Amino acid sequence: MLEPLREGALKGVRIVLASGSPRRSQILSHTGLPFEVCPSTAEENLDPARYADRPGGFATDTAGLKAREVAQRLEPSTPTLIIGSDTVVTLDNRLFGKPRDAEHAAQMLAQLSGRSHVVYTGVWLIRLDPALSRPRTLSFSQSTTVHFDHLSEAVIRAYVASGEPMDKAGGYGIQARGATLVQGINGDFFNVMGFPLHLFGRKLYELYDASP
Amino acid sequence: MLEPLREGALKGVRIVLASGSPRRSQILSHTGLPFEVCPSTAEENLDPARYADRPGGFATDTAGLKAREVAQRLEPSTPTLIIGSDTVVTLDNRLFGKPRDAEHAAQMLAQLSGRSHVVYTGVWLIRLDPALSRPRTLSFSQSTTVHFDHLSEAVIRAYVASGEPMDKAGGYGIQARGATLVQGINGDFFNVMGFPLHLFGRKLYELYDASP
Repeated sequence: MLEPLREGALKGVRIVLASGSPRRSQILSHTGLPFEVCPSTAEENLDPARYADRPGGFATDTAGLKAREVAQRLEPSTPTLIIGSDTVVTLDNRLFGKPRDAEHAAQMLAQLSGRSHVVYTGVWLIRLDPALSRPRTLSFSQSTTVHFDHLSEAVIRAYVASGEPMDKAGGYGIQARGATLVQGINGDFFNVMGFPLHLFGRKLYELYDASP
Repeated sequence: MLEPLREGALKGVRIVLASGSPRRSQILSHTGLPFEVCPSTAEENLDPARYADRPGGFATDTAGLKAREVAQRLEPSTPTLIIGSDTVVTLDNRLFGKPRDAEHAAQMLAQLSGRSHVVYTGVWLIRLDPALSRPRTLSFSQSTTVHFDHLSEAVIRAYVASGEPMDKAGGYGIQARGATLVQGINGDFFNVMGFPLHLFGRKLYELYDASP
């Protein structure tokens, strides 16, 4: 989808993913765009309580903290695109981030069991170019609904013991062992995994005034 | 999801995937079950015209051809589970298999462009056990709806040139570069990739009279 952009407006542009998530790197590699990884060191200190009615805003604003920190640190002198991203899981107006420990992960999974929840991933793009008078930014979020099967205690215990839940919003990874827990989804699979691949492509054309 | 079964009824059972698809191996590995791969050599000669009103049946019956061929060839003397699987793409009551060549792939993609289609994957399970008087089989299919973005000629040309469409039903791979073409799905992502992971888990409990 992004080949015309890669050979056009993005030619020679340095692309920086401001996230250390191996899953986001994997997804972004599907675009065929060359990029480097520079994890943000920004403090993720937004108050979830202020975003109770707009969880997508929480993800987008956190993505903005990450992207801006990397943009300021790199201070690039050549055309550069910075990509920040953040993912949250929501159920009954509560935001689920990464679990604190194994018990917290098991609690999260027990709450998700047998129900549908919504995953929001926010993205913040910064286009830096000496030819532009100022940086151009574009931000957006996308939601995907995930339908969980009923999980027995034995299944939750075994899954938590695998260690997989620990670094993942909501306590599961839809692209690995956690895949077996999910009956189906409504929306973009990669958004659940941590990056809204298709919408990112569309927005990238917009940011560079191009068309696919 | 399958840990209780792995430590229970499936303990010591040899598991054979009757498919050479690297994607199916990858998906099956998410279950945590140990398995070996033995690609079927069965001739896939079913007449699509006879399945026009039930594409899931075409996929399931083709999966059956594969599983039975491998079961007959191996003639196992210890408890064994054979897994056959087949995937088809359908649009307007037509079945799309793998493209014959690059031009055929481009035609398929042009037809899918800007529309929603349905992917069916059929699975055929054979449980062989000397303790049983005869093999037990269980078959099923699952459908997932896939929403394609509008694809320009340039995008189709670049994607076909990447070589990715050639060995895939419908001419695209949702888990790789083709991911950027897809706006979203309704159902199990892995079913589109080639194996209905979640439903397989459920059915496996059924085949071995166990509960998760």
